[in-house]
This record gives sequence, structure tokens and C-alpha cells, in this order.
Amino acid sequence: MYGIDTDGPATRGDAVDLRSDTLTRPTPAMRRAMAEAEVGDDVYREDPTVNALEERVAELFGHEAALFVPSGTMGNQIGLRLVCEPGQEVLGDADAHVLTYEMGAAAALFGLSSRTVVSEGGRLSADQLIAQVRPHGDWHLTATAAIAVENTHNRGGGLVQPLTELERLFAWSRTAGVNVHLDGARVFNASVASGVPLATYGRLADTASVCLSKGLGAPIGSVLVANAERIAAARLWRKRLGGGMRQVGVLAAAAHHALDHHLDRLATDHEHARLLAERLGVDPTTVETNMVVVDDVPAPAVAEAAKAQGVLVGQVSARRVRLVTHLDVDRDGVERAAKVLTQVIGDLAGH
Amino acid sequence: MYGIDTDGPATRGDAVDLRSDTLTRPTPAMRRAMAEAEVGDDVYREDPTVNALEERVAELFGHEAALFVPSGTMGNQIGLRLVCEPGQEVLGDADAHVLTYEMGAAAALFGLSSRTVVSEGGRLSADQLIAQVRPHGDWHLTATAAIAVENTHNRGGGLVQPLTELERLFAWSRTAGVNVHLDGARVFNASVASGVPLATYGRLADTASVCLSKGLGAPIGSVLVANAERIAAARLWRKRLGGGMRQVGVLAAAAHHALDHHLDRLATDHEHARLLAERLGVDPTTVETNMVVVDDVPAPAVAEAAKAQGVLVGQVSARRVRLVTHLDVDRDGVERAAKVLTQVIGDLAGH
Amino acid sequence: MYGIDTDGPATRGDAVDLRSDTLTRPTPAMRRAMAEAEVGDDVYREDPTVNALEERVAELFGHEAALFVPSGTMGNQIGLRLVCEPGQEVLGDADAHVLTYEMGAAAALFGLSSRTVVSEGGRLSADQLIAQVRPHGDWHLTATAAIAVENTHNRGGGLVQPLTELERLFAWSRTAGVNVHLDGARVFNASVASGVPLATYGRLADTASVCLSKGLGAPIGSVLVANAERIAAARLWRKRLGGGMRQVGVLAAAAHHALDHHLDRLATDHEHARLLAERLGVDPTTVETNMVVVDDVPAPAVAEAAKAQGVLVGQVSARRVRLVTHLDVDRDGVERAAKVLTQVIGDLAGH
Amino acid sequence: MYGIDTDGPATRGDAVDLRSDTLTRPTPAMRRAMAEAEVGDDVYREDPTVNALEERVAELFGHEAALFVPSGTMGNQIGLRLVCEPGQEVLGDADAHVLTYEMGAAAALFGLSSRTVVSEGGRLSADQLIAQVRPHGDWHLTATAAIAVENTHNRGGGLVQPLTELERLFAWSRTAGVNVHLDGARVFNASVASGVPLATYGRLADTASVCLSKGLGAPIGSVLVANAERIAAARLWRKRLGGGMRQVGVLAAAAHHALDHHLDRLATDHEHARLLAERLGVDPTTVETNMVVVDDVPAPAVAEAAKAQGVLVGQVSARRVRLVTHLDVDRDGVERAAKVLTQVIGDLAGH
Repeated sequence: MYGIDTDGPATRGDAVDLRSDTLTRPTPAMRRAMAEAEVGDDVYREDPTVNALEERVAELFGHEAALFVPSGTMGNQIGLRLVCEPGQEVLGDADAHVLTYEMGAAAALFGLSSRTVVSEGGRLSADQLIAQVRPHGDWHLTATAAIAVENTHNRGGGLVQPLTELERLFAWSRTAGVNVHLDGARVFNASVASGVPLATYGRLADTASVCLSKGLGAPIGSVLVANAERIAAARLWRKRLGGGMRQVGVLAAAAHHALDHHLDRLATDHEHARLLAERLGVDPTTVETNMVVVDDVPAPAVAEAAKAQGVLVGQVSARRVRLVTHLDVDRDGVERAAKVLTQVIGDLAGH
Repeated sequence: MYGIDTDGPATRGDAVDLRSDTLTRPTPAMRRAMAEAEVGDDVYREDPTVNALEERVAELFGHEAALFVPSGTMGNQIGLRLVCEPGQEVLGDADAHVLTYEMGAAAALFGLSSRTVVSEGGRLSADQLIAQVRPHGDWHLTATAAIAVENTHNRGGGLVQPLTELERLFAWSRTAGVNVHLDGARVFNASVASGVPLATYGRLADTASVCLSKGLGAPIGSVLVANAERIAAARLWRKRLGGGMRQVGVLAAAAHHALDHHLDRLATDHEHARLLAERLGVDPTTVETNMVVVDDVPAPAVAEAAKAQGVLVGQVSARRVRLVTHLDVDRDGVERAAKVLTQVIGDLAGH
Repeated sequence: MYGIDTDGPATRGDAVDLRSDTLTRPTPAMRRAMAEAEVGDDVYREDPTVNALEERVAELFGHEAALFVPSGTMGNQIGLRLVCEPGQEVLGDADAHVLTYEMGAAAALFGLSSRTVVSEGGRLSADQLIAQVRPHGDWHLTATAAIAVENTHNRGGGLVQPLTELERLFAWSRTAGVNVHLDGARVFNASVASGVPLATYGRLADTASVCLSKGLGAPIGSVLVANAERIAAARLWRKRLGGGMRQVGVLAAAAHHALDHHLDRLATDHEHARLLAERLGVDPTTVETNMVVVDDVPAPAVAEAAKAQGVLVGQVSARRVRLVTHLDVDRDGVERAAKVLTQVIGDLAGH
Repeated sequence: MYGIDTDGPATRGDAVDLRSDTLTRPTPAMRRAMAEAEVGDDVYREDPTVNALEERVAELFGHEAALFVPSGTMGNQIGLRLVCEPGQEVLGDADAHVLTYEMGAAAALFGLSSRTVVSEGGRLSADQLIAQVRPHGDWHLTATAAIAVENTHNRGGGLVQPLTELERLFAWSRTAGVNVHLDGARVFNASVASGVPLATYGRLADTASVCLSKGLGAPIGSVLVANAERIAAARLWRKRLGGGMRQVGVLAAAAHHALDHHLDRLATDHEHARLLAERLGVDPTTVETNMVVVDDVPAPAVAEAAKAQGVLVGQVSARRVRLVTHLDVDRDGVERAAKVLTQVIGDLAGH
């Protein structure tokens, strides 16, 4: 199966693991922060470390309130549910993570319909989406209630959405009674790459889910931001989904540490990705953040051969390999991976 | 609200009503057939007239079994449910009736996700769909379980799907473990227009819903066809949806009458539609069955002015009017409508 | 399988069919009314016969508005959905038709939870229900949004709910923010038996579904009553469920005829039921309307032996047989059934 | 709102907090274990600490496989989904946590219907449940697919279910094609109190959810056990619900520590609870594990007055207070709480 880049249960040892930035492991300093965290029962809203994190992330993204959730999937799905009722539809890119990689949760759990457009490699076109919005108030139309935007775009190879398109879409949505949800699993990468402040991205969405467990390196956790009324409702949905946890401060402390120490360093991951692209002869303009997409290679064979030499890569499809740089891959690792992959791809091309 | 062409509660009187072919009223002969129908309790499967109708329609479409349902929406939605599980997805045209005009039922009631492509005016492209199918068996992908096809295509102005595309899609689907559902609300029109037998269309789908209450002129009812196992399951879904009815023979008798007497005459409706197009200067190649789409006119104004002169038309969008010919509109009515509309559109263009 | 009393596809011929009052067939006069019905497209709300029926039934039950639906199941389920949101709960009798015999539709289609009490033979106890209501506003409780009442009670053998209990429950519900739904599949029988006006029963519920296809003898159809706002929402739910039909006047005409001619005669069915009970030695105080429950008999054997002599009965469980009187069973039929059943039960008891 | 005993966001300081055993905070030793945990990406199944925990808990309960989930609610709900299909029903106690305190999740998210019996204070009666099971295979019955059992019973004041009833229910369920789900949020308390091995309880259920974050004192986490096929399916449901997390080893390490060091000490909590009961004049036979229920007191007033003296208690209803002993309450705390509560209740009784 492509589409996901699992390697089966295994210890990485000292491999260079480029399958995903979800693989980052907490650093010793982060672990210390977790061990020293002040905690309480978060279901009772008595965990001071979580409460502070929620305030902090809400402010970062220019929203009133926030909610810690155990995964980006839960953040995205609750976010969509807040702005779409059963029988209404979410409009988005056919490659959007929320529709493609979250097991049909919006429909399965909440009864949200969806309609999609096929974008150019994940790049947002406000016009393309706006042309497909269906009006409310009719008695047989499936009304478009929400538009889902993804920044950076995962299947789009980490591309950063154009700010002008985001602005145009959001401005239009105000006039049309449609809400915008941002899947910001890697919005920190987008901000670091583009220089656009997080709050700017945040304000161009009604609900946004942002992940602390990817490039930022926290072990677990995402945060959903929205206005206070929606976050109050989100807290109930989180409970219903089984995302209400207890002494969550141990995880929130890791997230605080990540925001304190790992945000700026995403630039290094981006630099590493460009370096990899360069070494592998991939067009560097396709590398906007921390992902390198290598097309027209026999993905399973490349993955297997590279693994034998201690380099793990992701297989997106039969002919596409994905390399993701992150906290646990340093410059040496990048160089080593580049060397291995150059050889492996060369060898396989020769066959 | 556009997208539907309701006129509010009103008696049509002797208006020429081109809003939809759903408006056909049972003829005196059909009413006699209904009054004389042998009936039983169909929930107990004891209505002989329904039982015979189900056998008849199954055979017409080359399927093992069939189920009478109160509407095309119920036929389509049960059909989709038979071939798609909660959390899996239906792939189709962004303008498909099942996704656009059925109030998000597939997601709302059954938890089916959906993904769409934007087709050229509703015309099926097997390649375009195949490229968007997502594989099964992964642990986070929303798998494509079914492809929805619509023939004739409603929002496509009654276009008949190319047989070669239907064949190519179906053949491919066999290799991919994906099922095909046919929304055959107007498949009788397609068959009469193309000469392709109903059974040919039927065999290119795993489930198909066909409507007796549109061009065929029965007052109520659609039929879902599939294999026997699926129809047994459909019977349970129909019960759950509240579609289990009692002495349904009164409706099935109308359907039998329609199949006996109103099938061939669809050719007349198509002829009428072409005549209307000709009179109105609409490109006749866009008229494949019983619908004429007039673009670039002020739809609300046209509808209102025409109505004042006894001609009712449908408004698909702010600038699009739709004319549908059917059993209750004869040649004189068509001529009268053409005259009124030519004048009305001319007048409004002058402003 | 017990619980339902199907006989498989069969022609009744001149059998005395006591399995259910759903089996009534339209009379010649009713068929004439259907054949002469004025009709329109009810999806467009242009069917005058349906519109008049909806007004008539709303008024009969003292409600603002009404909606024709194809079955009692659809009427009940939409009724529940109008007064209960996904994740809230419907409270009712463990033997309630809406929870027991409608295939879990409330949960499956709408996400409504349910909680039940085990009543004494279906008899409503306001106190028993009130004690189980769970409050709103909490962040993990499943709140009780609606209480379902059934009158007459099907599994309770057609018992009429005590008016004082209905009144007490409804009065209490006003103070508790809980709505009451009436499953009035046989509320016409209740009214005729108790002398309580239909409007009185209607006013003790926020939503009520009443059936025209049972004792009243119409072939198809139920009506949901509620306030105007709820009925507007119900119309959308009906569309989503696939219950939006076209020239429904043919069915509504049968319903008008039933209300004109078959309402008062329900007293005859009740008299027949008492007569049957008497003949069979069943305690006549257990026969409040048109059902006779015979306990402690080998149900399958009784059903089979009686059928061989032209009397069809329902099997509720392994040891319970149900006899339902209706329009198609006259006094002679009752006497004949009594004779056959007395003998059959006597014979089987002797073994 | 009663039913839950939240105190609002607050720091406990040195209060004796008897509101719930979910409030336990990780000990220094447990925090060390977390800080030193070996981790991997659990979505990829590469976290060795989680993998070991799942194996360990599966074995403890005599099942083939297990899955770590972020909460007891998620464990219960996935457990129910594994043994019940949409439109089928879960049968249980009207006070069951899974139906009462989990926001209608089974219906809202999965379409599972439910039916309940009113037990005597939460005590399981196999006969009472068995009498309410509805058969499969019918075409309108809501079939009973699963029975939910809770041990210890939360709203029942921590009572331990009689082993003979559990055995009788499970044996019967094998003959009836019905599955049993165990809500084992506090099954560790049940086992310690009754001496019945965990594996015995485990084997009397098809699916069971057990919590590590209550009496055992882990900060976060529950584990679902079942056979291997069901756990494979559960992994997909967990992903869909947003419960797929990354470096979960930090939490699993706490769970291992809890199982190593905090299991036997539950006996101390039980002793503390009996001591509290004794001091407060509560019938000690009602205290089977770590909960004391004090009835016929003005709950809000008691809670407020006790809080002012540094003792926090739970309010179950207007006249019921609940005291829960746990890891963070030592003998001195118990004595102090007893003294404060005796005085507070005495004072309030005098008014």
C-alpha cells in the first residue's frame, strides 16, 4: 500500500529516517520539562500547564480560545464539525489530508458531506473553490458550509499556500456565509518559510488545527483554535470522541518546550531539504519547506535498497518517494542520505 | 434560490409546464390501472403487483433482483450504501445529483464520504475518475469503494453518457475492487435516445436506481436493481429509512402501465426538445434528450415573464433556464412555449 | 423469527387474516376516490389533495402543521429527530415500536441515543419515566431530549394509555425542557375506544406521527404533526430520507376517504376483538381496542394449524399469538376465526 | 449540574481531594520512568514501550491483543463498535457509564442503538438483561448485538459485580450470538477487592476497556483488549476518532510503572474508604471498593462547606455526595476528611 510510509514495527537505531517529521523523539531537555510539569485533571480544566498552552497557542494564531487534542486528526475533524452540520458539505482539494488521510471521519462520525476539486499539486486557487460553492437555504441542495485549506500542503510536497489566495478566499467567504477551516498540521513550517506571521494565517480561518508533534518535535498533541463559543463546543466533541484526558500537563510541557526552542530551527529543516534536493537533482523550486518529492522512481525498490543502507524514505505512490527533514536529522544525516539515495536511484535507473 | 425550479403551491391550470418531467400527472388510463390493481401488504412481500414489477424491472436491466422505493433519492442512497461502508468514499462528478441534490444524505444518514472531480458539463470521463480512485487496505486512507455515474446527466442538461466511457470505467472497476452505481433517474431517456438497450446500461453497474415518476409518467416510484443478496439488504435499509409501504400495488400498477405505454413515446419528448431548441436558437447538438438549457439569460426575469403568459420554466442558476419536455406537453404546447419564450427573451435582451 | 407475523408472499384468498391491521386493502369506494384525485407535484408543494390532507390532519390533532410521509416509521423517526439532537437521548418504554421495530433508525440514521425503562405491559407511568430523565447542560452526560409515548401500545396488545398519565408527563415535560413525541400509529383506535378527542391526544405531544394505513384502511401513508417551524424542518428531513414523492394526491385521496368513512367504524373492530376474546376465553379487560393477545400457546403450531383452516394469526413470541381485527374482517369472519382457533388451541393443548 | 463533580479550574494545594480517582498525579518515580522511556512513532507501531504495554495488558486479561487509547471513553466506545453494527443495539444498565456519561457517543458517532433496564443500584442481574435481548435476523427488529457490563459500577458506588452473574450472562451470551463488553474503568479495584483474577474478568467479555489513569495513577491512558482481529479493526477506529498518537511511550512508561507499583496498593484505598464510611456512619457493606456514597445530604451545601475546610467531595445528585479514595490521599487525609465532613454534615443537618 502506498500513501503511507510505514516500515512496520522496528527500531530505527542510527538510521537516517526521512519518512516523516512525525517521527521526532523528545529531546533530553524536553523530557526534563515533561518530568517537572505541574499537572491537574484536564477534564476538570484544572491542569495549569495545559491551560497556559491553550492560551498561548490561541494568542499565537490570533484567536480567542484553543483546545489541546491528542492528534491532528482530532483537531481537524472537530474543527470541521464546528463549522459544518450533518448533511452540509465541506469543500476542499481532492488531495486534502482531512478528506484523504483521516479515514472518512467527517462523514463517518459526523455525517458531513464533502465535495472536492482537483488542484494543481495542492496549490490553493480561490477561484477554483469559489466556483464550486453551493448555496444554503434550498430544500434539496447539499449546502457548502465550510472550505478546508491545508498549509503547508502534505500531498503537495510541503508547499506553502499563496497568501494572496488565502486572503481572497477568506474575504469572499465572509460574503458567502461559508467558514474556512485551516489544516495547519505544518503551518509552523509555512510561517518560517514564508515569513508570514502565524497570527496572519490564523486570522484567515474560522477554525484551525495546528500540530506540535511534527516539525516542532513534541511527542503528542495538536491544538485547535477558534472563537470562545466554538472552543466550548469543541470541548464537548473532544469528550464524545474520547479525547478528554487527565494529567495532560506532561504533554503540554513538551509543547511549551517545543514552542520555546524548536520553532525557529524549522529553517534548518528547510535548508536540509533544499540541500537534499540539490544533491538528488530535484528541482529546488519544488522544495518550499521540509519535504522533497522524488518522482519517476520505483518507490518500493528505492525504499528497500535505501533502508538496507540505513536511510528510510516514504513511499507516496508506486513512482513517488518522499523525504522529510526534521529535528532528528542533522546535516551529516542529510549528506549521508543524499549519498545513499543518489547511488540507489542511479543503480535502479540503470536496470 | 436557484438549483431548483419550484413555483410555490399553485395550480398549473392549462399552463405549459416545462419546469421538470417530475410534474407529469397520471393519465386516465393509468388511473384506471391503479384503481383495478391487485394489492397486498408489501412489507410482508404479499403485493403481487409490486412483486411482478420488481421482477420486470430487474429483467429489463439485466439484474437478479429489484426493489420498489418511494423516490429516486431513496433508490440512489440505498444503492450507494450497498456498495460503500461508513468511512469509505463515493467518487463522482461534482455535479452528480446524488451528491448535489440529495441533501448530503449519503454522509448524513450512512457516514459515506465523497470525493469529486469537476467534469466537462457532466460528461463522464473514465480516465478522470480512475485517476482519483484511492486504494483500499491502508490504515488512514479514505478508500474509494464506489463510483457514481449519472445517465442522462441532470445538471449536464440531459446528456447521454458515452457508452465507450461507461464500458471502460466498468471494465476497469472490475480490476480495482470498486463498484459502480448508476443514477438512472432518466436512463429510459438515455436508452431511447441512444438506442443502447436498458440491459446494457444495467449491466455496466453494480447497483442502479431508475425512476418511473419522471418521463414515464407514473405518479410515484423508483426501482433499485442489483444482485439478489444486495436487494435483500436493500429491503432492510428501505425499512430503516421509512420506505416500507403497504398496499403498494396501486403505485406499481401505474408503473406497469407506464412501462407498457410510455416508454417508446419518450422519443416524442426528445423531438419536442430539439424543436424548442431550434425555435430558441439553442445549439441543437446540446439537446440529446428531453432538456433544453438556455444560457446567458436573466433567469428570474425570464421565468416570471413567461409565467405571466402561461409558460413555466426552470431556473438552474441566475443566468440559466432549463426547459424539460414530457408527457403533459404536446406539440401545440411546445410551439406556444417557443413563441412566448422567444418574445420574452428578446424583450429582456433589449433591456 | 417471532416479533413479526409475516406469512411469506401469498395470496390471502378468502382467509380471515388477523395478522395485522396493516393488511387492509382499499375498498372500491376508496379506489374511486384515488382515481379521481386532483394531483400535482408534492415536492414542489403543488399537490392540492395532499395540501388539504395535511391541513386537515394538523387541525384534527390541534397542531399548526402536518407532513404526509410514506410510512409510520418515517413519521416517527423524523418526529424524534425534530426534538432530539445527535448525542442526546430519547427516553421510552423498552417495548416502544420506535426503538424496537424500526431497525435502530434513530441511532443509525440520526445519531440519537436511547434509554429505556421496562414498563408493565406497555402501560405508561409518568413517574417511571421522569425518574430516568437526565439533565441538559453537563459536559459528559447524555442529555434526555425527548420522551417517546405510544398510544395505543402495539406490544402492549393495543392498550390505551391513561389520559391522566399522559397529562402528568406532558405537564412535567414543560418544566424540564424535554419534548414528547407520540407514536400515534393507532391513536385513532385509542380515541374511538376512550372517547378522548384526537386533539387532546395531539396537544399532549410536541410531535406526533399518525397512521392512515392501519385501521383506517388507506393503502399507504402516515402524517406527522407539529408546529410550523418543525414541519418545515421535517420537510427537509423527508427529502433527505427519500420520502419526497410526486403526485401524492392519489394516496392522499385515499386518506381523505378513510377519515370520512372509516374512523367511526373502528368501534366495530374493537367490538369484534372483544367478541374474539370472549369466544377464546381471553380476559376481556385486556382487550381495549382491536387486538387480542393469546398467551401460553405454542405460537408456531397454532399459526400453522389455523392457517390450514383459513385463519391467519400473528406470532409475537414462541408462546404468544396476536389477533388483530380490521376493516377486512367482518362479523362472520370473526366467528369463523373464533371457531377455528378454539379448536386448534384445544387440540394443541391436548397434546 | 450534578452527575459530575467538577470544581472548576483551581489548584488543589494541600486539599484532600475526594472527588475522583482520576485526579491522581504522577509520582516522582513515575515521572522518572516517563522521562527515561524508549519511544517511537506509535502510528507506525514502532514505539517499543507501547507495544510491550499492549502485550502485557492483553496477557493480564487473557486476551490475544490490546490497544492503547487516550481515554476510557475511547476504549469503551471502540469496544462497543467492535461488537455492534449501526442499527443494532447495545443492551445495558440505565446507569451504565458508556450510555450515561459518554455523551451519547455510541449513537452519535457509530449509529449504535441502545436499550436499558433499571438495575438495583447498578448490580448486574443476568436474568434481567437476558429477558430484554431481542433476536437477530428479523427485518424490522433492532437486534441486540452486545451487552455492556460495568465492573466496578461507577454510579453504583464502586460495587463489584457478582462473579456468578457475570459467568451466567457470559455463558448465555455464547448461545445467543450476543457479545459482552466490559467497561473495566475500575476493574483493577474489582479484582483487588474480590480476589478474582483480572484474567477471569477478562475472559468473561469479548471486548474490555481498562483504565490506567484512575486508581492506578497513570496520568493518561486506557487499554482495550479483545481478540487479534478485533484489535486490528480497533486500530483503524482509533485512527478515525483521532486517537492515533505518536511517541506514546512516554505515557506507556507511566502505565508500566503503575502496573508494577500501584496495583496491590488499591487495597489501601479500599481500606481508606471503609474507614471513611465508618467515621461518617455510612453502612460499611455499601463500600466494596474505593467509593463512599453519602445519601440524604444537601450535596451542594456539603461540598461548599467542606471545600472551605480543604476537603473536596463529588456531588452525584442534589442529595448525594460521593467520596473516592486514591493514591493522592493518605491515612491522615482520610482522617482529616472524616472529621471535616462529620462536622459539616452535622451542622447542615441541624439547620
